[in-house]
Amino acid sequence: MDDIKKMIRNIKDFPKQGIIFRDITTAIKDAQTMKNIVDFMAAEYENEKIDYVAGIESRGFIFGMPIAYKLGCGFIPIRKPGKLPAQTISQEYSLEYGTDKIEIHKDAIKKGDRILIVDDLLATGGTAAAAAKLVQSANGELVGISFLIELEDLKGREKLPPNVKISSLVRY
Amino acid sequence: MDDIKKMIRNIKDFPKQGIIFRDITTAIKDAQTMKNIVDFMAAEYENEKIDYVAGIESRGFIFGMPIAYKLGCGFIPIRKPGKLPAQTISQEYSLEYGTDKIEIHKDAIKKGDRILIVDDLLATGGTAAAAAKLVQSANGELVGISFLIELEDLKGREKLPPNVKISSLVRY
Repeated sequence: MDDIKKMIRNIKDFPKQGIIFRDITTAIKDAQTMKNIVDFMAAEYENEKIDYVAGIESRGFIFGMPIAYKLGCGFIPIRKPGKLPAQTISQEYSLEYGTDKIEIHKDAIKKGDRILIVDDLLATGGTAAAAAKLVQSANGELVGISFLIELEDLKGREKLPPNVKISSLVRY
Repeated sequence: MDDIKKMIRNIKDFPKQGIIFRDITTAIKDAQTMKNIVDFMAAEYENEKIDYVAGIESRGFIFGMPIAYKLGCGFIPIRKPGKLPAQTISQEYSLEYGTDKIEIHKDAIKKGDRILIVDDLLATGGTAAAAAKLVQSANGELVGISFLIELEDLKGREKLPPNVKISSLVRY
């Protein structure tokens, strides 16, 4: 995974002073690194009989779709409010200041569907925890949550449901 | 392509009265349809020596990444303002009321890179034309623009640069 980590660019003070932003654009621009990321992330779930990969807007789309393609399953977008055209269910989560919301289509998941959630980054875990609640409130069987990057100091893992496989490729 | 068209759901009056929204979520949820879409979209460019697929946020990410994966090339995100962490170049385009902007990283494309732009839908062509200008202003060689859906009545094709291959799988 060191080869992948080397291709992630570190940008100081974005989006604000004191933050080091982990920029994945340099990693996915390199064809071989991109392929390795997708293949490694998919490989961890290839024996898990995943029915659907659910990707969180919008960097979760970037990794979620090729992982679904590789696993041979379908893809379900988890989106910001107002973007999905049919009936939705939504879940609120806390931000540093205030709250935000994510949604899925009400008919996207049926009881017992085996779901893998994908996002680029596990930080404080708020968004992923909300996505997990969405899947579970639709009676989906949440099998795992897969991230490219995990910021271990922020302990986002602790916010995620127990008995669900949590995986990340690159850790800081 | 009729099999794909059948899997796209039509939703009346979204996002506003009088519009029929072409909902791709039903198509990409079905594993076989999703694979067919990606494989067909990629196949049109497999002999074009594409260096990078550039996907337009955010449904262009959904199709662009697996197409890049399938073609064995890298991926460059074209994003809404304020999302990309390094230096960017940006391009304005007109909406029905007012204007909007898209951006790419300044160092994403170098002279002569062969680029395929991907988005889900060609409507009036404003966003795709702006994306084309971004690629060309970075001195990239824009080889093609690939859409899943084309709304032919809106004549978006006419806004796109000449001498660039424009392709779409499903037309209304």
